[in-house]
Formats: sequence, structure tokens, C-alpha cells
Amino acid sequence: MNKILIKGATVLRAEGTVDVTDILIEGDRIAKIGAVDDVEGATVIDGRKKFATPGLVNAHTHASMTLLRSYADDLALMDWLNNHIWPIEAKMKRADIYWGAALAAVEMIKSGTTAFADMYGPCMEEVAKVVDESGMRGVLCRGLIGIFDGDEKLSTNVELFKEWNGGADGRVTVMFGPHAIYTCEPEYLKKVVAAASKCGAEIHMHMNETLDEIDGCIKKYGKRPFEVVNETGLLDLGMLAAHCVHLSDDEINIMVEKNVRVAHNPGSNMKISSGIAPIEKLIERGLIVGVGTDGASSNNNLDMLEEIRLASFLNKVSTMSPTAIPALETIKLGTINSARAIGLKEVGELREGWKADIVLWDMSGVEWQPNYNPTSLLAYSAASTSADTVIVDGKILMEVRQLKTLDEEKIISEFNKCFERLTNS
Amino acid sequence: MNKILIKGATVLRAEGTVDVTDILIEGDRIAKIGAVDDVEGATVIDGRKKFATPGLVNAHTHASMTLLRSYADDLALMDWLNNHIWPIEAKMKRADIYWGAALAAVEMIKSGTTAFADMYGPCMEEVAKVVDESGMRGVLCRGLIGIFDGDEKLSTNVELFKEWNGGADGRVTVMFGPHAIYTCEPEYLKKVVAAASKCGAEIHMHMNETLDEIDGCIKKYGKRPFEVVNETGLLDLGMLAAHCVHLSDDEINIMVEKNVRVAHNPGSNMKISSGIAPIEKLIERGLIVGVGTDGASSNNNLDMLEEIRLASFLNKVSTMSPTAIPALETIKLGTINSARAIGLKEVGELREGWKADIVLWDMSGVEWQPNYNPTSLLAYSAASTSADTVIVDGKILMEVRQLKTLDEEKIISEFNKCFERLTNS
Repeated sequence: MNKILIKGATVLRAEGTVDVTDILIEGDRIAKIGAVDDVEGATVIDGRKKFATPGLVNAHTHASMTLLRSYADDLALMDWLNNHIWPIEAKMKRADIYWGAALAAVEMIKSGTTAFADMYGPCMEEVAKVVDESGMRGVLCRGLIGIFDGDEKLSTNVELFKEWNGGADGRVTVMFGPHAIYTCEPEYLKKVVAAASKCGAEIHMHMNETLDEIDGCIKKYGKRPFEVVNETGLLDLGMLAAHCVHLSDDEINIMVEKNVRVAHNPGSNMKISSGIAPIEKLIERGLIVGVGTDGASSNNNLDMLEEIRLASFLNKVSTMSPTAIPALETIKLGTINSARAIGLKEVGELREGWKADIVLWDMSGVEWQPNYNPTSLLAYSAASTSADTVIVDGKILMEVRQLKTLDEEKIISEFNKCFERLTNS
Repeated sequence: MNKILIKGATVLRAEGTVDVTDILIEGDRIAKIGAVDDVEGATVIDGRKKFATPGLVNAHTHASMTLLRSYADDLALMDWLNNHIWPIEAKMKRADIYWGAALAAVEMIKSGTTAFADMYGPCMEEVAKVVDESGMRGVLCRGLIGIFDGDEKLSTNVELFKEWNGGADGRVTVMFGPHAIYTCEPEYLKKVVAAASKCGAEIHMHMNETLDEIDGCIKKYGKRPFEVVNETGLLDLGMLAAHCVHLSDDEINIMVEKNVRVAHNPGSNMKISSGIAPIEKLIERGLIVGVGTDGASSNNNLDMLEEIRLASFLNKVSTMSPTAIPALETIKLGTINSARAIGLKEVGELREGWKADIVLWDMSGVEWQPNYNPTSLLAYSAASTSADTVIVDGKILMEVRQLKTLDEEKIISEFNKCFERLTNS
């Protein structure tokens, strides 16, 4: 059995306390957190001056959109989608989805992210392949824009589920991905409910992102998005709802009743001027709130450390409460809360018996000085490039900044060929 | 004469355009931006895959407060100052000011910052020494808390001016630093006016940071801070005003009339829940608005790239205008606008004849792919650790991430000794 012994790391325990100790990994799980003598056959990692935390979990992204990073900025959502993003996306081929997601995987691993929830267009099996090859965890769905060829798209989501759910040693989960209320009518959502419930799959959907979306929904259906969606039965399957910026009290009640899990996307919501999600209120109501970067074309990176810091800061200023979401809770937003939001079990905290998804952060950098409170330093000061070693499912994906499962140079080269072809065709 | 030739860099010109070309530096200035043949005796820097921009300028910080990074978080401003920061600051000695500022200089240079405006307690001449030794530019003032030993403090600011203004080959400027309206009464501010005007020095002051400050001022003086300060004559000397979060229309009129220059501190204002500064409104009125990190104990780092991104994102969401402060303007906030705000001349843009304060950003990292729009990538995606080479006043301070003027290892070691002594005494 695979064994890894991390010696003398500064460990963020599930209880929120920090101490210097050892971590023993056996197979895909954390066997012990505490003093461990040498273990025969174990790979030993020097944990000194390293902060061991759960891997970061990106609760909502569109991995292959790395191809469109900085391609169109400083625009309103619908202008950006209709006039810039959707036209170039229409040209994307299978290879683009693969290399876009591969670059995303490189970016995520190098910034300490071990799992992600992804929604995108055709060929999601290419993203699944990247999850398989990279060693990350992925919760994948086909983005279903029901108003164009909805049935065909739905059938590809079913295929994705059949082929990949539970795949890559259990590291792939498949959900169903109705895109949004403005691209999926209630009758179509009912078809999604039928197909997803037959599979026993959950739902990943953009919800209540902009005021325009809400206004359009009220105009068309006389109700708000969560009310319309609730009537289709979609929420009964379990939903990961991205954005959730503009919510009525009645909608929050529905979310509580149906245990909707939220992916908060502060960077994207700020950059596109969608608004400020009331996450403090949602957390107070007992809802699970994780954090995601959204796609790299609206953010413009997949840096989860930047994202949780933004989530904390934005919440502090918008509630005028400096004590709200302190440092430890900030880290939890991007670890255990995000893991729960995207439906991962026994992931998101360093606990004996739980999955060994661990990041070692190098604390020798200048922005980690003085090394007084590592939890605060990670939440509020560290650069994500201090991710030094990344372990998922007991396997080392990066060691001292060197990727072990992916060929970074080749991926960057192939990725740029895809971008050249897309923009020159 | 010192000559440096940067060959084949991707250059952000003062006009906002980007092209691949050469930069010739002669002495402390940019001699040419354009194709340059080999120059005899010039140090040649390979600019390929490097984005050449003006150095970032931190318009408001407290450098030595790196010692208090992550020492006290998630507190309201006055609780944080009264019960945590001021008690430990009272223990600080000369060496702490020096090593705290030295660590700050390491952190700033490594994240692409070439100049900073600093306000802190006693021994500001130690910060001046760090500016001199590091090769950075510094605009320094003694933080004058008038209500305790105000006259003595004021005399040290006069001494600082006499000893250091124009020092370090012109890289040091000295201002006067009345701390804030809640720590300086009008009669004291008039003394500051008298002393500063005798020197011909400008003013650096915290203004209108929190609602409590405004309320206290109105209660005490029946007027708002800018109104009280204006009556003392302080604004006639030229003021760099930090924070400027809560402003009445009358106060903005005063600021316009007196050409007050603003240091916007979004990270600190968000983390401490001070509020959201109306920078769009100030910019529209023609005011100069730069960006600063504030001290590392309230932010919690000196990362100007993170700070300008925050400034842009926060403005977009608070004005609900995604087109506001686009990528190029975001970079300008932290370069030319900050340089103007802190009173630097011929700094902040890459222009022939201007000072050679240049950062080369390494564009080979994954978050710079595809390399389609470097301006957007720097503003919205890049990590500050991609600062590769830093030049100030025609002198190389960092080359390929190696510091040339400062001993990083020794500084981190001495800094940590200071922190240990401060917290164990």
C-alpha cells in the first residue's frame, strides 16, 4: 500500500487549531495526524516550514474557458456572453476543451486547488480525462442551454454520467447542468429532472446572478428564479447553485427547505458588476456556502486563495462587520464548505480516516513573516504561488512546485496552438 | 554613464499601447523606447516573454508594520488600534523600525513596487536608510499623533526633513504626517502648517476613514474632517489624503478646490469594514486617485497588484458599472496616478526622458496564458510573484527574482528576532 509520511509540518487540524506534527498517509487516506516514527516503505516529505492544510476546492468554474482568459473584459454579462464569448465558444472543438481544461488543471494544482466543480459545453468527457490524468477530483456536468438543441445536450449529459460517474478511482462525480433560468424553460427543466433522477444525479446551475436575470424571469413567469425552478422538482435532486447574488426572503426560505448548496463567486460578481451575494445571511440560515472562481474569462484566473480572501473582505465591507468571517472561516469557505457544496464526502478537512487531499504551503516567503499566525497568513497575506506540494487521494500531484502527473510545458504549448487556431479561424 | 539595454520586451507605453521593442536606459532615465542596436558598454537584459511596465507605486503604507502582520485580525479599527496595535507599537525600538521597513522593501521589490509613501512613528530616519540602501523611492513622514507629545514629534518631522528631504540621490522626499483628525486638534494642525510651510513640505494624513471618525469630528467641532482641516490651512500645502471613504459633497468640493490627492486603500477599508470609497466620483471630479496597501497589519500584505485589482473590482460592483475602471486604468491607478498622488515627478509611465523605474513581469507562467492581452493579464490575472526584474532610477534592484541591493535571508532573520523580542518582552 502507498504510504507517505509528512514530517514536522505545521498542521491546520479540523478543529481549527495549529500545531507542528507529522501526517501519515496510507493508501488514499490520512492514517494519523500526530507524532509518527519512521514507517517502512513510506515516502518521506520534509514538512518543516510548511503549512499543511486541506486542498482548496473550487466550487464553480468553467475550466476550458482558460482559453478565453483576458479575451474580453470590462463588459456587462449579456453583452460579454452574446457578443464575445458565445461566438468564439461556437468554434471550439474537442481538442480545445481538453487543452483548456488541462491548462486549468495546471493552474489549479500550482495554486493549491485539489478539486473543482465544472460546467461547460460539448465534450465534457475531455474534462473528465483531464481529471483522470491529473489526479484531481472533478464534479462535472454538461452545461445545458435548453433553448437550443436541448434534448441532444441532455442526452450527452446522460452519456457523461454513464461513462464517467464514479470514474478515475472515484475522483469523478457527474451532475446535470441546466445552465440558467434564462436559457432553460420550465418544461425543459422537467426533462432534466426526469433524466437526472433516473441516474440519481444532482444538479449544478447558475442561479440569480444578475438583476436582469431576475427581471426577465419575473416578466416571463411572474415569479422569481428559485420559485420557478422549485416547481419543476429540480431542487429535490440536490442542487449546487452558483452565484446566488439577488435573493428574496421567500427564495432563501426555499433554499433552506431544499438544502440548496451555494457556490459564491465574488471575483466574477464584482468584475461583471453582478452584485454582492448576501453570504452572511445565507450562512446564518444554515446553508452551505462554498467559493468558486467562475471561469477564467470573467475573473481572470483560477486562484482560490485570492477568491476566499475576496469573499471575506467583500463580506466584511458589505455587512460593515470586521469580525464577520474571520481568518479560519475564510479558509473553511474554500475547503470544507466548498467540498460539501460540491458534494464531496470526507474531503475538506485534515482528519484521520478522511481522504488525503493535502496542500503544503511554503512559509519561507517574505509575505509569511513573521510566522506568528499561519491561518491568518494563508487567509490574508500569502500568494497562491506558495503552494509547494499537493497531494490528492494519497497521490503526490506536485512536489516542490514540480508537477508529477501533468507535463506543464507541453500543455502550455498545445493550449496556445488551440488559442491561435480559435482566434485565426 | 550607466547604460542598460532591455531587448525585445513587450512594452506598455505611456499611450496605453503595447508592442514588442527595446528600451535603452542611460543613467537614471529612459533614453529610448524603440528598436536599438547594440550599445557599447550597456548591460543587456533579455526582455523576451517579459512585460515591461512602470514600477508600481504604493501610495500609502506603514512599512515597519510588517512586524505586526497577522498579529491582530478581524477587529474594528479603534479596538484594533487601542487594544492591540498601539500597545505593541509602544515597545518598538530603532532596530524594529529598520528591520520592519527592510522586510517591507524586500516584499515590495519582489512584488513589483518601486516607490512608496510611508507614515510611521519615531525613528523614520531608519526607513530613510532602507530607502537609501534598497534603491527604492520613498516619500516619508513622521506620523504625528498631536494629542501626546505633539511638539516633540513635530520637531522630529522637521529633523527628518532637514536630514533626508532630497536624499539618496533624490529618491527620498519628506512630507509632514499629522496622523488624523481624531489624534490632532486644529491648534496642533496649525503648528504643523507653520513648520511644514517653513520647510516647503507637503502633508500626508489619514482622512475620513471611518464613520466613527466623522461622527466624532462633527460632535467635537460641528463640522466634517475636511472642513476642519481646511480651516487650519493644511490643504494649501498640498495633501496626500489616505482612505477618503466617507465624504460629503461639500468636502469633495473642498478637495477639488485644494487639489487634494487621494490614496485609496480598498483592502484595508474592506477588511476593517471602514467602507467603500467613492473613487469613481472623485476621478470624475478630476482628482488624482492613487492606490496604497496600507500597513501589512491591516491588509495583510504589501501586494500592489492585488490592491489595484481590488480597487477595480470593488469599484465595478459598488457602482454596478462593469465598464468602469477597465484594465489599463486599473494599472494606471497603481502607477502614474499613485506616482502623482505621492508627488513624484517623471515617474509612473514609460516615457523617453522620464525616470527609469521599470518592472519586467515574467509572462511564461500558466496564469499569463493565452498571452493575448498583457494589460488585462497584469491587471486581472497575474500573481505579483511574476515580477522578474525591477529597475529604479536606472539601477537594477532585482534580476530574475534575485535581489541585488538587499540581503533577503539576513533581513528575514533579523526581522524575526525583532518580532520575538517584541512579543516576549
